[in-house]
Amino acid sequence: MKTPYAADIRENQVIDGLFLVATKNQGVTKGGNSYLTLKLVDRSGEIEGRVWERADDLARGFDRNDFVRVRGQATLYQGKVQLRVQDVIRVDESKIAPEDFLAKSSQDPDAMLEELQAILRSIKNPHLLALIESCFADPELMNLLRRAPGAKTIHHPYISGLLEHTLSLLKLILKVVENYRGIDVDLLLVGGFLHDIGKVYEFSFDRAVEYTDAGQLLGHLVMEVELVDRKIATIPEFPAELALLVKHLLVSHHGAYEFGSPKLPQTVEAVILHSLDDLDGKIQAIQNLPEKEPGSKWTIFHRAYGRSFYRHIREEKEEE
Amino acid sequence: MKTPYAADIRENQVIDGLFLVATKNQGVTKGGNSYLTLKLVDRSGEIEGRVWERADDLARGFDRNDFVRVRGQATLYQGKVQLRVQDVIRVDESKIAPEDFLAKSSQDPDAMLEELQAILRSIKNPHLLALIESCFADPELMNLLRRAPGAKTIHHPYISGLLEHTLSLLKLILKVVENYRGIDVDLLLVGGFLHDIGKVYEFSFDRAVEYTDAGQLLGHLVMEVELVDRKIATIPEFPAELALLVKHLLVSHHGAYEFGSPKLPQTVEAVILHSLDDLDGKIQAIQNLPEKEPGSKWTIFHRAYGRSFYRHIREEKEEE
Amino acid sequence: MKTPYAADIRENQVIDGLFLVATKNQGVTKGGNSYLTLKLVDRSGEIEGRVWERADDLARGFDRNDFVRVRGQATLYQGKVQLRVQDVIRVDESKIAPEDFLAKSSQDPDAMLEELQAILRSIKNPHLLALIESCFADPELMNLLRRAPGAKTIHHPYISGLLEHTLSLLKLILKVVENYRGIDVDLLLVGGFLHDIGKVYEFSFDRAVEYTDAGQLLGHLVMEVELVDRKIATIPEFPAELALLVKHLLVSHHGAYEFGSPKLPQTVEAVILHSLDDLDGKIQAIQNLPEKEPGSKWTIFHRAYGRSFYRHIREEKEEE
Amino acid sequence: MKTPYAADIRENQVIDGLFLVATKNQGVTKGGNSYLTLKLVDRSGEIEGRVWERADDLARGFDRNDFVRVRGQATLYQGKVQLRVQDVIRVDESKIAPEDFLAKSSQDPDAMLEELQAILRSIKNPHLLALIESCFADPELMNLLRRAPGAKTIHHPYISGLLEHTLSLLKLILKVVENYRGIDVDLLLVGGFLHDIGKVYEFSFDRAVEYTDAGQLLGHLVMEVELVDRKIATIPEFPAELALLVKHLLVSHHGAYEFGSPKLPQTVEAVILHSLDDLDGKIQAIQNLPEKEPGSKWTIFHRAYGRSFYRHIREEKEEE
Amino acid sequence: MKTPYAADIRENQVIDGLFLVATKNQGVTKGGNSYLTLKLVDRSGEIEGRVWERADDLARGFDRNDFVRVRGQATLYQGKVQLRVQDVIRVDESKIAPEDFLAKSSQDPDAMLEELQAILRSIKNPHLLALIESCFADPELMNLLRRAPGAKTIHHPYISGLLEHTLSLLKLILKVVENYRGIDVDLLLVGGFLHDIGKVYEFSFDRAVEYTDAGQLLGHLVMEVELVDRKIATIPEFPAELALLVKHLLVSHHGAYEFGSPKLPQTVEAVILHSLDDLDGKIQAIQNLPEKEPGSKWTIFHRAYGRSFYRHIREEKEEE
Amino acid sequence: MKTPYAADIRENQVIDGLFLVATKNQGVTKGGNSYLTLKLVDRSGEIEGRVWERADDLARGFDRNDFVRVRGQATLYQGKVQLRVQDVIRVDESKIAPEDFLAKSSQDPDAMLEELQAILRSIKNPHLLALIESCFADPELMNLLRRAPGAKTIHHPYISGLLEHTLSLLKLILKVVENYRGIDVDLLLVGGFLHDIGKVYEFSFDRAVEYTDAGQLLGHLVMEVELVDRKIATIPEFPAELALLVKHLLVSHHGAYEFGSPKLPQTVEAVILHSLDDLDGKIQAIQNLPEKEPGSKWTIFHRAYGRSFYRHIREEKEEE
Repeated sequence: MKTPYAADIRENQVIDGLFLVATKNQGVTKGGNSYLTLKLVDRSGEIEGRVWERADDLARGFDRNDFVRVRGQATLYQGKVQLRVQDVIRVDESKIAPEDFLAKSSQDPDAMLEELQAILRSIKNPHLLALIESCFADPELMNLLRRAPGAKTIHHPYISGLLEHTLSLLKLILKVVENYRGIDVDLLLVGGFLHDIGKVYEFSFDRAVEYTDAGQLLGHLVMEVELVDRKIATIPEFPAELALLVKHLLVSHHGAYEFGSPKLPQTVEAVILHSLDDLDGKIQAIQNLPEKEPGSKWTIFHRAYGRSFYRHIREEKEEE
Repeated sequence: MKTPYAADIRENQVIDGLFLVATKNQGVTKGGNSYLTLKLVDRSGEIEGRVWERADDLARGFDRNDFVRVRGQATLYQGKVQLRVQDVIRVDESKIAPEDFLAKSSQDPDAMLEELQAILRSIKNPHLLALIESCFADPELMNLLRRAPGAKTIHHPYISGLLEHTLSLLKLILKVVENYRGIDVDLLLVGGFLHDIGKVYEFSFDRAVEYTDAGQLLGHLVMEVELVDRKIATIPEFPAELALLVKHLLVSHHGAYEFGSPKLPQTVEAVILHSLDDLDGKIQAIQNLPEKEPGSKWTIFHRAYGRSFYRHIREEKEEE
Repeated sequence: MKTPYAADIRENQVIDGLFLVATKNQGVTKGGNSYLTLKLVDRSGEIEGRVWERADDLARGFDRNDFVRVRGQATLYQGKVQLRVQDVIRVDESKIAPEDFLAKSSQDPDAMLEELQAILRSIKNPHLLALIESCFADPELMNLLRRAPGAKTIHHPYISGLLEHTLSLLKLILKVVENYRGIDVDLLLVGGFLHDIGKVYEFSFDRAVEYTDAGQLLGHLVMEVELVDRKIATIPEFPAELALLVKHLLVSHHGAYEFGSPKLPQTVEAVILHSLDDLDGKIQAIQNLPEKEPGSKWTIFHRAYGRSFYRHIREEKEEE
Repeated sequence: MKTPYAADIRENQVIDGLFLVATKNQGVTKGGNSYLTLKLVDRSGEIEGRVWERADDLARGFDRNDFVRVRGQATLYQGKVQLRVQDVIRVDESKIAPEDFLAKSSQDPDAMLEELQAILRSIKNPHLLALIESCFADPELMNLLRRAPGAKTIHHPYISGLLEHTLSLLKLILKVVENYRGIDVDLLLVGGFLHDIGKVYEFSFDRAVEYTDAGQLLGHLVMEVELVDRKIATIPEFPAELALLVKHLLVSHHGAYEFGSPKLPQTVEAVILHSLDDLDGKIQAIQNLPEKEPGSKWTIFHRAYGRSFYRHIREEKEEE
Repeated sequence: MKTPYAADIRENQVIDGLFLVATKNQGVTKGGNSYLTLKLVDRSGEIEGRVWERADDLARGFDRNDFVRVRGQATLYQGKVQLRVQDVIRVDESKIAPEDFLAKSSQDPDAMLEELQAILRSIKNPHLLALIESCFADPELMNLLRRAPGAKTIHHPYISGLLEHTLSLLKLILKVVENYRGIDVDLLLVGGFLHDIGKVYEFSFDRAVEYTDAGQLLGHLVMEVELVDRKIATIPEFPAELALLVKHLLVSHHGAYEFGSPKLPQTVEAVILHSLDDLDGKIQAIQNLPEKEPGSKWTIFHRAYGRSFYRHIREEKEEE
Repeated sequence: MKTPYAADIRENQVIDGLFLVATKNQGVTKGGNSYLTLKLVDRSGEIEGRVWERADDLARGFDRNDFVRVRGQATLYQGKVQLRVQDVIRVDESKIAPEDFLAKSSQDPDAMLEELQAILRSIKNPHLLALIESCFADPELMNLLRRAPGAKTIHHPYISGLLEHTLSLLKLILKVVENYRGIDVDLLLVGGFLHDIGKVYEFSFDRAVEYTDAGQLLGHLVMEVELVDRKIATIPEFPAELALLVKHLLVSHHGAYEFGSPKLPQTVEAVILHSLDDLDGKIQAIQNLPEKEPGSKWTIFHRAYGRSFYRHIREEKEEE
């Protein structure tokens, strides 16, 4: 484990540690001297760094998105801790423990992927089966899916979090449909598989999780409709109504206009998908929120859900 | 099956049929003659009746909440069909087919009650077990529960609908918790059992479903907290925190302030209960909504959910 | 002009007129007799028809979506005028004046299309030019665009209304951009052209304007993103950022989540497009709303805009 | 008056003062050394303390909820002032001036209680009189009522603030009802007395005002319905409708769903109670808000009311 | 009392009664014959009349805003009762009982005005006194104030209702301020007097209550600020801050943006004025709402307040 | 250019610079010594200053609203940079570069005013022409208009920003009306000219932009209605309907209740004015927002618009 983590650095601390350069900008002081402004990140968060001396020299030695070894001292600027950097030097990726930079799921992505594929291959509708197979056969897509996070902060915010959430949701769907008649399970499973798959394009998550421009300007919901539209175009005689039903699951899965769904759920499967997706995310989030203070039954405040949670049973955290 | 149903009566039709007297009010015309205004109901809905002749005589023969045989003719008043009643006479309840007046669940209430009790008696927490047994031991409560409707219109709006919904929810809970660790199943089952039990006081449903004054002024949510509070008072050493957790499930189960919950769900069990309760109600409602027009895949507009639904699979309606 | 229009039929009136059969459903009375329920429409609105005699015979002579000559008498049922149909017989489309069934723009669609193409061919960006040419080269799309309505009720609700609105918007854009620097006019024109083009799939408008299933379940906004995605796929080396900017205009053009945009406008062009689209629709609607009562300066209440409007200048209505 | 108050401590200041230990948590540094994290509070607010040296020794000498004398130096951590504690030692409560730790009403609680009881004993309805006497006869309840605060921050946020607000409201009710006929004054007085009484359980206020778990999970509104339900159970022949009317006042007194009332006010008394309760709280808050800057007519921004207030008359602050 | 009232007319009834002509529009049938469409009103509501025969002749005999005697028969059109008018003839105002056409306050306007002036002349602030005297000295204003209604439907919707509400509010203010220190009573009384005075321009209420164009386009709130601005301009040395405080009471008295106040109440007097104004209106409305059905404790649904009310005490209605 | 700007001062920096004294308050320490608290501002923002020594002496030498030369050192207090002031001395305004204290439009106010007057004098309606001439003839008004800012922060937040926005809007109106028939251009131009003119009273902007009390308590919208009301009073025979239409443009120009418009736009001109006003403000704001970080296509988050913006074309900033 690296020391120190960005989030743990305190005023006056002398630092010698590894960080990822998230942004690197060069400026000139009024007196005409070059300086550098850096955003240094690791899995714990970020810290701003400033290079006031030898800025041009040091700048030549590394780029944005490089791992670097940074030496300097923590100081305060406008109430935030900042590093005055004395030295910064590029470090080869091979020297880095990736988990220091990106949190990841406690579950093995290959095992999860295998289980997910087994569930989906149980689908009987041949058109839907063809659709999921056309996804499985897309190596770029599957590669991204192996690693994509579930979110930046709200729930499953770590590498392979999307896969973890998707698998959990599929298993939940299989259980819930046992309780009802008249549900199109195949359709629902395909919806469960694809409902967030656009997140592989919504985030960049090579060395840190950031929104992409496409993520900001279009969002995963629209991008996964495009993906499905392209896949279906390659499948002969895919029924038009079925295509509509699949896409409807995607566009409505946020459940309400104010959460960015351009249509409300209007099929029983869309209602179920929205409900279980929301539930699975909330359970993961509640069970993994930090506590308010050590030993408290109350969690910290969850901004998106607008409340703290009270936990009388404390689930063992999976990653420890 | 009775003919005609109130909802099927059309202008000019000559009527001879059985109805329940929901309201009965006597008035006097400007010319000084007595007349009666009646609300006549059956399971299909209601129709207004007016008695213009022999009003005093006829009024002596029946009361509010009686079943009556009505003869007369349908006419229109301010755009609504109304009966000009020529004759109205009390009919003994023994002559009535109850299902003509109140729709009821397609499932047997005793069988449902048995299954519900079996599930709840699997609870291991002795305090919670004592709580549900104190409910089972309350004959008035259990009697009401056998018959209470799930709602006036939104979902499960028929006799024993509350029981049907509660049982379906308990079974759903049992399936969903298999997918997660760290959930207090016993607590969740008790919450599922009690979350709507105040509806036995919220509605009167002897011969028709109506809101009670207590239902309007307090609501089932508050009344079931009182019920639980009284039951717990009879159980020695019921832990205070556990009582709090049970009651929290009740007060938060509508999930949002605007739906009448004075607190948001703040435990993982409260989040699950709200989510599954909402889902079970919606599935029942969607699968049983009338279609927009014969043969259409679209249902009529559901006012509370704010939309129509599209059904590509048409569940066999259970009551036919 | 046909007589009578559906909206003008009053109680007891004897009818002999032409209508379009919007729905046709067969039922059986309790007594075992066939009957027909028809939705009969023309440009003024709709009226329900019931065939109680010779239903089987008459039903064989026409189908849903046929034009028919209907004879019968108007009656009232539950406060609405209904036709008791004595005779109904199919009429060949050649006997029909189309404008009796669908209102249409006062402007010539071919002239509008020509003007629209001339404006769009002024675009200098070669990629965007290729995109609009690939649309122009799609005869099915252009055919639909010639006739599609702008909406079912809110604004431009008539045949070729979409084209009229789109052209007006493009001309408005050209004027507005003269007032500012730094606006990407080409991008904005393409956005103006495509922002509602999915409406050609959102509505069916052959003989009457109705929402399609795809219109209800996906909406024009999502469908036009798919259209653009497919067109761009056929254009070599279309820049990814440019594709993103075009699609962002489409997904954000309703301007707010509650109006079904999954993303807010986040470029200056998206802000302008939303604003001018909204303005052009409102101006058309305000100028063409019926007055509250003859001679009044106040219009009837516009449900979607939530208000009546006051007109001190009365624009000559274009269609008279 | 103690020095310094937590809210007044500034960077680098050397501290020797008295505080209440609100939380006390022990941790271990990466290097294996014990340290303590303390939340130190007084009436002005709170400050975080860290003990880096002799943590185990010092920790043995005091507990959470003790008063302590703390010596150390203020420093900054992540933009907030923090104490590096050199020494911390338990201080007996007898050495403490309670008003340094909890603000209290400027009015004498016993005098207020007496006045409140005199008003309520003027009630003529014997059932309601029995209800308030059963409360007066509950020593635990009355003891809590003597001291409970009106809120944590919004209005009357000090010891005996609940009593002060309740008394002011009762007196206001007596004045307002003089202006109208047809108001049930007895009912309204009982509602005024009980509307916030659940706050005695919503807050802990022994040495500092904090929300209790029950306050967070149930809220005062629900807890006071339970209290009334229990009291009424002990009164023979308390009319059911009257019980309903009293409880309705409690459940609806926040006036709107979004403020946590599960029912809207539906009686004229409930409408009046909500209105006057809200008004009395706002007047107190406005008159006691700190000014924006010395001498300004504008107060600081009041978060819950969403605005600053302008005061052209400056009420003498009661506590000075 | 006139017979019949518009609201009491039922299908097929033969009518011979007095009405006010609210609108009168002439049309031509397709066959080329003149006809008239009339809106006939009295205090109970309105009914549409149609003159099919001798339309030109009859039209010459009366105008919009005339009282007329109408003979004809009630029929139904599109679910609403309509009069087929056989004869209509102008009736001199002297033959009319004004209270048949406009409901009016049960209290004497002159007595109310006297009491109101007495209260306001108790004001000590000489500037505010000058302001109210300049209003009293404006005969047109005072004349309108004598008769203006409090609203079209929400509360005090009858002749002199504005005066009744204003007087009740002033008396309520006098009582409430006794409970607090530091309130500027003079300012509050002036605000109470003027807060709705713009309603004299918002409604026309000569023979029926209608919104004026100015009422719709500006509203009473803005118009009364203009009135105050003009009055103050005539008073030498009226302090600028005081003018601001008075106007602030007016612009903020609806209490929230969504109710048309461009500013929130930001002085303690503005908070009190909004609260008591709202309360006084609600009490009047609740006590005077019709019951849901004869004998019910529940009122009909109040659209603006979004609920029905339960009345356990039934205030004698003042007008009977 | 002055150094340093308030926003650029960092911890520990030694300062010798010019500032405007926005507030000056004197206090006494517990030990009995005088100190001063100053709010020092320039165009970049503000910084708090504290004088601990020679406070009485120094205080005599300057007042609120004076320009001063300040010497001292930056320190941190509660996470914000603060100046410990050693010396502060009044500086004559002649020594000050005004643009160091208030940003101003890049366009010449006199040229803008001339262009604005030329546009408005093209109005043909003699009444409206008289109205704008009565404004032009008011030297105090025109003087304020030359300098008033468009806002404190949202858009055009600099000296002469109101004029710049107003002129841009008038030119935009002239272009947009070319696209439509039936618009009252004269009315719209007058509305464009007056829609924000109340901002000359809403802000004080002599040496810094601050809200006035009238701005907070009444707002520019109400104050400009008063202004128009007074001007119209001086114009003989100004038509009442026209006055109403002009004022309606002002009261409705924020377009929605929640943005402080007491009436929605109800004329086509009011709809256009609101739409173009909003658009012109947004374009200016988007094009001039600082970028998120140097070189980024994303701007910082705009609080009022609730989003960041993406700029693929970067408009040359006008002020550089």
